[in-house]
Amino acid sequence: MTIKSYFPILDWGRRYNRQTLTSDLVAAVIVTIMLIPQSLAYALLAGLPPEVGLYASVLPLVAYAIFGTSSALAVGPVAVVSLMTAAAVGRIAAEGSADYASAAIVLALLSGVMLTLMGLFRLGFIANFLSHPVISGFITASGLIIATSQVGGLLGIKTEGHALPDLILSIIEHIGQTNPYTVAVGAVALSLLLWIRLDLKNWLKRFGVPKGLATIIVRAGPVLVVFLTMAWSATMDLGAKGVALVGQVPQGLPLLSLPNLSLDTIQQLALPALIISIVGFVESISVAQTLAAKRRERISPNQELIGLGASNIAAAIGGGYPVTGGFARSVVNFDAGAATPAAGAFTAVGIAGATLLLTPFLAILPKATLAATIVLAVLTLVDFSILKRAWSYSKADFAAVAITLGGTLLLGVEMGISLGVGASILIFLYRSSQPHAAVVGLVPGTEHYRNVKRHKVDTVPGVLAIRIDESLYFANARYLEDLVTNQVAANPGLTDVVLMCSAVNAIDMSALESLEAIAARLADLKVRLHLSEVKGPVMDHLAGTEFIAHLSGQIHLSQHQAMLAIAQHRLKSVPTPADAGLGSRGPQSATSH
Amino acid sequence: MTIKSYFPILDWGRRYNRQTLTSDLVAAVIVTIMLIPQSLAYALLAGLPPEVGLYASVLPLVAYAIFGTSSALAVGPVAVVSLMTAAAVGRIAAEGSADYASAAIVLALLSGVMLTLMGLFRLGFIANFLSHPVISGFITASGLIIATSQVGGLLGIKTEGHALPDLILSIIEHIGQTNPYTVAVGAVALSLLLWIRLDLKNWLKRFGVPKGLATIIVRAGPVLVVFLTMAWSATMDLGAKGVALVGQVPQGLPLLSLPNLSLDTIQQLALPALIISIVGFVESISVAQTLAAKRRERISPNQELIGLGASNIAAAIGGGYPVTGGFARSVVNFDAGAATPAAGAFTAVGIAGATLLLTPFLAILPKATLAATIVLAVLTLVDFSILKRAWSYSKADFAAVAITLGGTLLLGVEMGISLGVGASILIFLYRSSQPHAAVVGLVPGTEHYRNVKRHKVDTVPGVLAIRIDESLYFANARYLEDLVTNQVAANPGLTDVVLMCSAVNAIDMSALESLEAIAARLADLKVRLHLSEVKGPVMDHLAGTEFIAHLSGQIHLSQHQAMLAIAQHRLKSVPTPADAGLGSRGPQSATSH
Repeated sequence: MTIKSYFPILDWGRRYNRQTLTSDLVAAVIVTIMLIPQSLAYALLAGLPPEVGLYASVLPLVAYAIFGTSSALAVGPVAVVSLMTAAAVGRIAAEGSADYASAAIVLALLSGVMLTLMGLFRLGFIANFLSHPVISGFITASGLIIATSQVGGLLGIKTEGHALPDLILSIIEHIGQTNPYTVAVGAVALSLLLWIRLDLKNWLKRFGVPKGLATIIVRAGPVLVVFLTMAWSATMDLGAKGVALVGQVPQGLPLLSLPNLSLDTIQQLALPALIISIVGFVESISVAQTLAAKRRERISPNQELIGLGASNIAAAIGGGYPVTGGFARSVVNFDAGAATPAAGAFTAVGIAGATLLLTPFLAILPKATLAATIVLAVLTLVDFSILKRAWSYSKADFAAVAITLGGTLLLGVEMGISLGVGASILIFLYRSSQPHAAVVGLVPGTEHYRNVKRHKVDTVPGVLAIRIDESLYFANARYLEDLVTNQVAANPGLTDVVLMCSAVNAIDMSALESLEAIAARLADLKVRLHLSEVKGPVMDHLAGTEFIAHLSGQIHLSQHQAMLAIAQHRLKSVPTPADAGLGSRGPQSATSH
Repeated sequence: MTIKSYFPILDWGRRYNRQTLTSDLVAAVIVTIMLIPQSLAYALLAGLPPEVGLYASVLPLVAYAIFGTSSALAVGPVAVVSLMTAAAVGRIAAEGSADYASAAIVLALLSGVMLTLMGLFRLGFIANFLSHPVISGFITASGLIIATSQVGGLLGIKTEGHALPDLILSIIEHIGQTNPYTVAVGAVALSLLLWIRLDLKNWLKRFGVPKGLATIIVRAGPVLVVFLTMAWSATMDLGAKGVALVGQVPQGLPLLSLPNLSLDTIQQLALPALIISIVGFVESISVAQTLAAKRRERISPNQELIGLGASNIAAAIGGGYPVTGGFARSVVNFDAGAATPAAGAFTAVGIAGATLLLTPFLAILPKATLAATIVLAVLTLVDFSILKRAWSYSKADFAAVAITLGGTLLLGVEMGISLGVGASILIFLYRSSQPHAAVVGLVPGTEHYRNVKRHKVDTVPGVLAIRIDESLYFANARYLEDLVTNQVAANPGLTDVVLMCSAVNAIDMSALESLEAIAARLADLKVRLHLSEVKGPVMDHLAGTEFIAHLSGQIHLSQHQAMLAIAQHRLKSVPTPADAGLGSRGPQSATSH
């Protein structure tokens, strides 16, 4: 690893030219327009003042441009991480308090440091333990929770909670306080946004608007809705009619600062920060890899950890909250032609400018507009088809999805994803602790040995060939002992047992002791024990052990060679060749043993 | 499962006769004599009044005789479980208080219920996750902690703590208060016990004492030391000289009762009870299976759970504390000829009688005698050779031992064993997340394919055959993608990739998506993807998927058939036979790819 590999900007920066600059600038303008309402809305979802969303869309983008490896990834506040922030910070501070905002900053800092350390220590593989079914279930459940959490904003009532039961109870409790003006703003905003997404493009096309311009207008749609409802709010004085408005926000960008770090806060936020880091990283790397594959570029997962870590540290310094690479905005960035991470830096400049210009006017923006923006954005996250696909592929994968989805909906994001990861690991361990094993025989006309129950194969009387379909380790060592003991008991008259190890990828010390126990029991019964197809890495470990030194049989390169050697041995030791099996009269036909 | 299988006594009880009765009675006498000082001592180790040890050696033995399947296992208080009880109960009540004793009873009850439920739901496999290296490290560390914890008793000073650092600091702090008379009693008791164990048998032999009688005298030795130091205490009035004595204990057996169960206590003791249950079960089942194997008997692990569960519930009812099958006493029971679990019931009668007779005299017994008994008993637990054996076999197993041993010594029993189990599972997951894979070629003269780096094998230009040595699941799915992508990038001019799946024991949904991604990338490069040696259970899952439906190549029964089919395909599609590889001019020799 050279210093340069930690600063991808040194690589693409040297190849930067006017063409890439133009591409990046165009993409930046489009993404900026898209990000403004989203940033405001997601900050609100995180329980923070809306301008914090803008702050979190400036410095992190610059940091990612320096350290990130994806040319298309757009980092910033995203829906799921905002919900997770609200859940984590809401546990230690009251929404709206100064402590709440500063805890969100600490959360971003912790997450940034964790991600950076994971990247430096090359621990990107940790993210692999978040399986695809778990992620899918989690994202769908989060989308549902987020949409439900915005119902209050659309009705003008106060709701609480970060899991479905709390939210629904909260809505029922306060439904009587619904404000009709808020409902009107929410309904108009929601309808407009839906229409913009579904119909506006075709409508513009019908009026002869060129495709490129139509796309930009559609992308700018949410900003137009923001301005429209701001105008409505101002002219009708909606604030006086009980419609919740964003209210006065500090003008300009916050001074760069680091949050007050108390050991207590760090302890309380460490675990949520870790979960947010991993979820954010997995979401981000999936987007980055999908987009990179389309352009045949390569993403370095460990450098991406450093890029996201730097972004989150930057978010903390800039007064924001945890950020990650978002799916929708990255796709827009990619489609708009972003050629290098510089597009992100230009977007940051755009957002910074907008922040300076926009903040004075935000006071009159109805919060219902932002709630409508969120609802529309997260509906694309909800996808129940994963349940059906998982069910039809494997019940174990279905269980992982269902546990994650149900756990997240009922118990909240942190509990839900932890349950999902725990369940998928336990399912894997349970399965490997009860391994599949097959008695095998020779496929006629080949040197290939397969399960007697599934294939028409030839077996040799007195020889039991067992293929164990799992690495042998502590969780299944005793199972192996029972298996061999039972098989031997069920086959009287055995002279040889061959353990075919083609699927045994490791043998740990507990399993070695079980093998020794098996060898001792077989020795008592005067049955020879052979091994076949033991892999190199496994043999390297076994080589010096007592087990191998005192093995009654041999170790054979292939199962076929083992069977031939056993037949040879019988020919030598048994005077009548008729008894010798494979060697003399060929294998016996059998479909089950 | 019939009712009878839950009551093994119905089975062996029918075959009970005078001969088995005699054997069982002889064994019971010997074990009773051995158990009396041990029971007193272990109760003290658990922080309980010594008579509680006797209580815990009565009803549990009767319960095990009804529900247990081992003819030799002797249940009762054991060293490691006593230490774990002290650690668990010491956290919620002060030693010597009524709450402490009743919490120990609750712990036994919880453990009994958990074990019984695990047995009824056939969850005995959970114990497999306590690997042999972890158990070894844990037992050794526990032995060291226990021995250290008795130093205070031998010096007549008060010590505190359940982990090594606390204990050592505590000894150093109070060393000035050492009582010389206590040291004398402790030294004499320790020397006598050592001499009895090491020399007495030979000494008796030299005096012509028959071997059988000599064995009984040696076994009774610890009881003799108890009587001797009691006499010393009485004649010299050691109590007045500052020697800690056992003191007045209630006479007779406690009335059968159930403890006061508060939800709070249950919550605090649930996790320790689970750990004690699993550790106790693993210790017990290992002893039972070792002894059963010598007599070619079978132990039913799930019924053993029920047997131990019933014993612990009985311990709670009888005013005792958690019990399990002990190693030393079971071996003695076995050697003495115990023929059925009835031997345990007779031992219970013996202990009950001793409790009634002995309690009036216990008041003058110096505690140092019991401390000496414990030190000698646990020294056999300490075995550092496991560290050396694990190191030479595999660094991963060594890490598991070292973490368990160090964790237990420094952080206590519960933390130590939890760390050990956690570490061994993480090591397993980490290894399976970074699977070994090999490019394979044909072993000349066979149909067997092996690693090009380890064997002299033949490969075919343009065909890449990769054997993946691991089940494909979420933790290594992305790894597989990278592996194939990198291999393909390193081998320009490829026409076919064969994934040899002989070692792939499962493919989960995440891995299926990775396979789909690999297939898509290879399709872009116009490289055909084949599978070979896919196992039945794996194929059952894959059968209906899109991946199989759109596979560019074929699925072959064996790797050899795959290579032949590819050669055939080339012969058909390529006009010049010289290019066709294996089919026309035979495989090319290669030792690396």
